[in-house]
Amino acid sequence: MLREFGVAPPKKHVVIVGAGFGGLACAKKLRKSAAYSVTLIDRNPYQLFSPLLYQVATASLPEDDIAFPVRTAYREVQFIRAEVTNVDTGAKTLTLSTGKTLSYDDLVLAVGSEGTTFGIPGVAEHTLQMKSVAHARDIRRSLLRTYEAVEDGVLPIESLNVVIVGGGPTGVELAGAVRELQGEIKREFAHIAPQATVTLLEAGPRLLPSFQPSSSEHARKALTKMGVNVRVDAAVTEATSRSLRLKDGEELVAGTRIWAAGVVAPPHWKFLGESDRGNRLKVNPQLQLNDSLWVVGDAANFADAEGKPLPMIAPVAIQQGRHVARQMLRRERNEALEPFKYRDKGQMATIGRRKAVVEVRPWLRFQGTIAWLTWLALHLAYLSGGRNRTSIFADWVWNYFVWTPRRTITE
Amino acid sequence: MLREFGVAPPKKHVVIVGAGFGGLACAKKLRKSAAYSVTLIDRNPYQLFSPLLYQVATASLPEDDIAFPVRTAYREVQFIRAEVTNVDTGAKTLTLSTGKTLSYDDLVLAVGSEGTTFGIPGVAEHTLQMKSVAHARDIRRSLLRTYEAVEDGVLPIESLNVVIVGGGPTGVELAGAVRELQGEIKREFAHIAPQATVTLLEAGPRLLPSFQPSSSEHARKALTKMGVNVRVDAAVTEATSRSLRLKDGEELVAGTRIWAAGVVAPPHWKFLGESDRGNRLKVNPQLQLNDSLWVVGDAANFADAEGKPLPMIAPVAIQQGRHVARQMLRRERNEALEPFKYRDKGQMATIGRRKAVVEVRPWLRFQGTIAWLTWLALHLAYLSGGRNRTSIFADWVWNYFVWTPRRTITE
Repeated sequence: MLREFGVAPPKKHVVIVGAGFGGLACAKKLRKSAAYSVTLIDRNPYQLFSPLLYQVATASLPEDDIAFPVRTAYREVQFIRAEVTNVDTGAKTLTLSTGKTLSYDDLVLAVGSEGTTFGIPGVAEHTLQMKSVAHARDIRRSLLRTYEAVEDGVLPIESLNVVIVGGGPTGVELAGAVRELQGEIKREFAHIAPQATVTLLEAGPRLLPSFQPSSSEHARKALTKMGVNVRVDAAVTEATSRSLRLKDGEELVAGTRIWAAGVVAPPHWKFLGESDRGNRLKVNPQLQLNDSLWVVGDAANFADAEGKPLPMIAPVAIQQGRHVARQMLRRERNEALEPFKYRDKGQMATIGRRKAVVEVRPWLRFQGTIAWLTWLALHLAYLSGGRNRTSIFADWVWNYFVWTPRRTITE
Repeated sequence: MLREFGVAPPKKHVVIVGAGFGGLACAKKLRKSAAYSVTLIDRNPYQLFSPLLYQVATASLPEDDIAFPVRTAYREVQFIRAEVTNVDTGAKTLTLSTGKTLSYDDLVLAVGSEGTTFGIPGVAEHTLQMKSVAHARDIRRSLLRTYEAVEDGVLPIESLNVVIVGGGPTGVELAGAVRELQGEIKREFAHIAPQATVTLLEAGPRLLPSFQPSSSEHARKALTKMGVNVRVDAAVTEATSRSLRLKDGEELVAGTRIWAAGVVAPPHWKFLGESDRGNRLKVNPQLQLNDSLWVVGDAANFADAEGKPLPMIAPVAIQQGRHVARQMLRRERNEALEPFKYRDKGQMATIGRRKAVVEVRPWLRFQGTIAWLTWLALHLAYLSGGRNRTSIFADWVWNYFVWTPRRTITE
């Protein structure tokens, strides 16, 4: 189309920090806008599909299956691989770890969350985290190589034990998958493998605290039936190089100690405004700190109608990322900004093969195989790249229906 | 079946060192024998399908796709993860890196080959090898991360250049795949990527020296058309941290320098008998060093009818592994041992997508797309695990027919 009436105005520059669910949702909606040019910054050139990280950690999926290239995701979006070391909100500039400075008209913080140790002694040094590909790789290596070390007499038999701290969806999914992996390894290390145990520790009174009590109970029963030792009211007070200690003094010896007990926003950004205990920045109803600074996803403290902050989950981040993009487009059309409203689509967690709990509404929830098929379909639908979708689908069909030894790993 | 006429004789213990093509072929044939129990030893718990290593190095396949679990491959075979540090052929015992000692009745060396630098200065320190998953990972990381370093001004633009040394099938396949990867990266780093080059160096007068000259010429033309700089009669005399120097003094600056110039058997085993320049042990017509010591595959120097040692390729190793197993079974039946005869099924090399050269017989050879489809079908047929076959097939269909950005890698 010819621009007959004058020159196009210069585009405004939107910088999005973080190529996760929220940042990409925002970039996707803005990318074709005539009013904005978009730059996306992340320390990794891929989006991590973290809901499936536990399958990488338990050797079910290769890590490439859950990492989607962001450089080529949207042709119109410029990608920079870097960390942001500073923000000058007055001058509207960012300093990058590469030494470069970048100016912006709008800045969107979509920086996600990271694991937290709650300051419990030894946790940082002696447990494995569960937030990145590197973490999943470390867990996988520990799970598999411990058998060899025990077989060779390098480690005692108790090293085969696995303790997972945190009864949220990550802990529940991981506990089920680890138990299944232990079952398969029995064929390879028949003389030692049957002694391996999995313990899932939850500091509160029930698993899946954000779910309805009946879902919690279903998860507990299902995991127990699989052979997972589920312990509630079991707060960890210390981690050592061989064990975890509970508040009642009990010591659980385990070669693989996984910490999935909670996440906080990165503390790095707290200087930008008022934050809560989890470092989440308190935003206005439009998800802003000021006119040109927006926060979406795990890093934003946005209260729902009852004043409770929204959960740190992908659907919130995606809806917020889209909302921010929509507001920028409205602003260009001189329309008033709208407050963000979260449309709760429910939550779900899988528990081993062919079992899951799904809650669409408090009164609409289901469990078991149908829930698991729902989980499967929804995760496939959410996965970004067509390529990865094909590959994961092939792997899942194999894992769940053909059911022979899972793919090896090059450890 | 009841053993009505007396007790079963104790089984003889066959130890196979190396879980490659030769070792696994031997184990597979012996595993159900009533006369033998089989132990397989390897430093890795997987068989590496090395013909596809170049696809892992160029980010086409995830590494798990070309590694097959050996622990669970054959239920009747015991697997030990270790290296063999010593052999006492008199006492018939092996010492392992784990400190254990193992006695054997028959020992099969199937230890394969490793890269050789031919003693050229700097090659060991300043080039990337191409024999293991770790090597492929290093190459992949170098190929991809150099673009970021150049973009950030950390490395000069010449660092994008890739030089591959060795015009055999590995070098030819790698050169084509690297060139294709460079083409795809243009979309991600449009401002710098077009300057990246690939040079393939061959010390001799033509590529693919073991093929017919017309195949060599076809490969040279096809690679040149793709944009690979093919240089023959180009012997490397030195490698540095930024370049390779040729015998005529020319210096080729490249950030990724890959050494695929030749392999030798591991020198570790030379003490067992007479070996050739490539450390290959000279075996008798039955592939033996003595009655209880067998050598198969790359580590064996077995001369064909014309006195030329057989090539170091998978089909030779597979046929030799099977032959040795067959001879052990014959011996149990008090039948005379047979000499090994190699059935040459031809050779092939792929050159980028949809192009290959195949030679079944000197007079039966073909090139181009049909050759490539043959290559594809045969490699799929050879791949060991059903699981990996599914997964690779899904990946290949995507790579070759759907043709969008390839899967990312978590670098």
